[in-house]
Amino acid sequence: MDIRDLFKDWTALIDQEVSIEGWVRNHRDQKSFGFLMVNDGTDFRTIQVVYEESIPNFSDIQKVRVGAAIMVQGVMVKTPQNAQPFEIKARSITEVGSSPEDYPIQPKRHTREFLRTVPHLRLRTNLFTALFKVRSILHHSIHSFFESQGFVHVAAPIITSSDAEGAGELFQVTTLPLDKLPKKDGEIDYSEDFFGNLTHLTVSGQLQAEIFAQNFKRGYTFGPTFRAENSNTKTHASEFWMVEPEMAFSDLNTIIEVSKNMVQFLIKDVLEKAPVEMAFFDEFVEKGLLDKLNKVLTSPFAVMTHKEAIDTLLKSGKKFEILPAQGKDLATEHEKALVEIQDGPVYVIDWPEEIKAFYMRLNDDQKTVAAMDLLVPGAGELIGGSQREERPDLLEKRMKAFGIDPKSLQWYLDLRKYGSTPHAGFGLGFDRMLIYLTGVENIRDVIPFPRTPKNCQF
Amino acid sequence: MDIRDLFKDWTALIDQEVSIEGWVRNHRDQKSFGFLMVNDGTDFRTIQVVYEESIPNFSDIQKVRVGAAIMVQGVMVKTPQNAQPFEIKARSITEVGSSPEDYPIQPKRHTREFLRTVPHLRLRTNLFTALFKVRSILHHSIHSFFESQGFVHVAAPIITSSDAEGAGELFQVTTLPLDKLPKKDGEIDYSEDFFGNLTHLTVSGQLQAEIFAQNFKRGYTFGPTFRAENSNTKTHASEFWMVEPEMAFSDLNTIIEVSKNMVQFLIKDVLEKAPVEMAFFDEFVEKGLLDKLNKVLTSPFAVMTHKEAIDTLLKSGKKFEILPAQGKDLATEHEKALVEIQDGPVYVIDWPEEIKAFYMRLNDDQKTVAAMDLLVPGAGELIGGSQREERPDLLEKRMKAFGIDPKSLQWYLDLRKYGSTPHAGFGLGFDRMLIYLTGVENIRDVIPFPRTPKNCQF
Repeated sequence: MDIRDLFKDWTALIDQEVSIEGWVRNHRDQKSFGFLMVNDGTDFRTIQVVYEESIPNFSDIQKVRVGAAIMVQGVMVKTPQNAQPFEIKARSITEVGSSPEDYPIQPKRHTREFLRTVPHLRLRTNLFTALFKVRSILHHSIHSFFESQGFVHVAAPIITSSDAEGAGELFQVTTLPLDKLPKKDGEIDYSEDFFGNLTHLTVSGQLQAEIFAQNFKRGYTFGPTFRAENSNTKTHASEFWMVEPEMAFSDLNTIIEVSKNMVQFLIKDVLEKAPVEMAFFDEFVEKGLLDKLNKVLTSPFAVMTHKEAIDTLLKSGKKFEILPAQGKDLATEHEKALVEIQDGPVYVIDWPEEIKAFYMRLNDDQKTVAAMDLLVPGAGELIGGSQREERPDLLEKRMKAFGIDPKSLQWYLDLRKYGSTPHAGFGLGFDRMLIYLTGVENIRDVIPFPRTPKNCQF
Repeated sequence: MDIRDLFKDWTALIDQEVSIEGWVRNHRDQKSFGFLMVNDGTDFRTIQVVYEESIPNFSDIQKVRVGAAIMVQGVMVKTPQNAQPFEIKARSITEVGSSPEDYPIQPKRHTREFLRTVPHLRLRTNLFTALFKVRSILHHSIHSFFESQGFVHVAAPIITSSDAEGAGELFQVTTLPLDKLPKKDGEIDYSEDFFGNLTHLTVSGQLQAEIFAQNFKRGYTFGPTFRAENSNTKTHASEFWMVEPEMAFSDLNTIIEVSKNMVQFLIKDVLEKAPVEMAFFDEFVEKGLLDKLNKVLTSPFAVMTHKEAIDTLLKSGKKFEILPAQGKDLATEHEKALVEIQDGPVYVIDWPEEIKAFYMRLNDDQKTVAAMDLLVPGAGELIGGSQREERPDLLEKRMKAFGIDPKSLQWYLDLRKYGSTPHAGFGLGFDRMLIYLTGVENIRDVIPFPRTPKNCQF
């Protein structure tokens, strides 16, 4: 049976025969008895198995090492003096798969840098068992939220011939033989490539989600996106997951409301479904984590324009390395200051049009776009979104200003030609949300098999 | 409000003021009144809006074309003589976004071939509205099933430096400048590529799911996978989604049980959540679809060895283009014959070892592996799986026999070195499951933005 079922129903199981399977996390063998701490991944907690000389293969079991897979049959007994109120008194133990002495995950402190070198084994530590369990739960929570709100899911394609942002560094996808590239008029002949043209990995599923919103009213993508950006920071990965909902018949206020509801839903859901793991993060990874998250559940979310945000920063008397300025982007230090001043999450809206993407809707002032960034305590920008430009003439004008050939996005313009609606959407970086939720601050740790410059294991 | 809420509570809403938004699917304008059929994607059904000369902008509304986005305020009224028991009597109608005469999705029959040329608009037809809604529901059902069974989700990486199957045609991922490739000793110097080595798009997340199973007992991936296979068939796409669960402390019987439960759960869930759409497919796409699916819910699933399957085929008296033979793979015609003879789903197990993948567990006869294919009426092979070889020496031997350098998969061998367990897993092609569930038989139609040879739109 699963160890999680033991923890769930332990009072009913006292003095009952049980059998479990799992991996040895720790082993203390004494002369005439021993203790095995066993985890099977179904519960964060390990269960203590005590064995005595009476079991038939006592001397073999004494030699069982950390990392071994075992099967245990025994009786659940109360242990009022221990941290855990029960243990299993073994009748029989079988070693299913041994673990040699060079097993890298010994019961001691390993650095996270070392653990990154063994991504296939690091999940066998408390930290990564908790982290990847919460990652799985958060993944489900995201789908649950959007399903409950009547969003239709669309898997945006990974290989694409369009460049959603009109910028960014792209990964090329090809089956051409690099050692004998076909040429035509001196240029590489992409008509011979697999798809008959130049293709890349997607940087965003937003534009495809808009297609869905223009029929299903509410659509969302949740999947991998890619940036070939050669930056080695704690928050940048080359392959990362984005949640991108889009809503027709909606404006900036709609997405402020929906994104706030989403963030609060995700926090609540994870706290409810992973209380043991979240307490672990609060104790060992980020002191005060639970307070930080609970605050987001109860604080009002402030809303201020970009202009007001700059004014607030300038009047704050705080010192900045980069001076806040009207018309300019917010630096990380500015974001941090704003959530401090507001003492809670802040939506900054109505951004200068030149510094935001081409698809964002121009406000009546002709100077700002109906965009929003959500800043949260302890993480800065968590979400970015906007009302989308639904007026075909203005969209085309903005495309040209951003150096995008309207012909290359004719299908996107079609959405404005045929039954256009005011609509809006936003994007949440899944991995960054996990960083925020767990306090584990390096994206190389929250992604099971991270891809970063010069690093692609397996 | 959403049109789905009108359908849900219509009796309570009779004589009440309501307001809706949506797109015009059809418009019949008479001299002094008109009917607009409006859909907003939240319900498969359209709602009829009737308007009369009394509305202020009557002559403008008469000109509203199919595809336009409108907002309607009006009163819900009973219409006992119509197909639908209610309609909205409009008080005011606003055209939010017009639709010019060249709108491609007119209320007439379009060929699926034509609709494939407008993937951004084809979802505005009944067929594709139903299809992509069911696709979204099935996506949720898969996650629900595995969550309910205690599986931990892992997003297998898309960019990979390992080749899971030791075969297959791969898409290369690179940021090297193709017009001036860096060379070293006459070879392309991949140390200068983004990841510092040769990388591809993944063909399977199985091996990574095994890593998760070896800590969490049950793990699964559900995401995009890629094959650069130049084959133009109805069931092959270059980018497709796979569901791949893996279970530790499990054998072939476990995955037979779990995959059967999964298939039945998915069918039940979709029938329950999309009754209107499924009735539409049954009526207009595949006559007898619902009977076919209900049969899978009630039929026993037969289990026979590959040897028994060949014997059964040879004794059946049926004529085949390819003669069934011991030791050989099953052709599509053989699969069809087997489900016909069994009159229901069939698991074929214990396959000849030479024709199955390197990671499948060798049976004691030394000739077969503990593999299974699930064949279903009307689709042939739906699922393939196996117990995985957990014995390191035998796995390494099989790798070599398949021409795979064990060093290149040292991490995979590590899973057998440290706490190995008997384990098993299977794969379900998500898009093929959707083909099976809806009767829409071309993979170019069940995927919103399909990628096939020489075809990568957007």
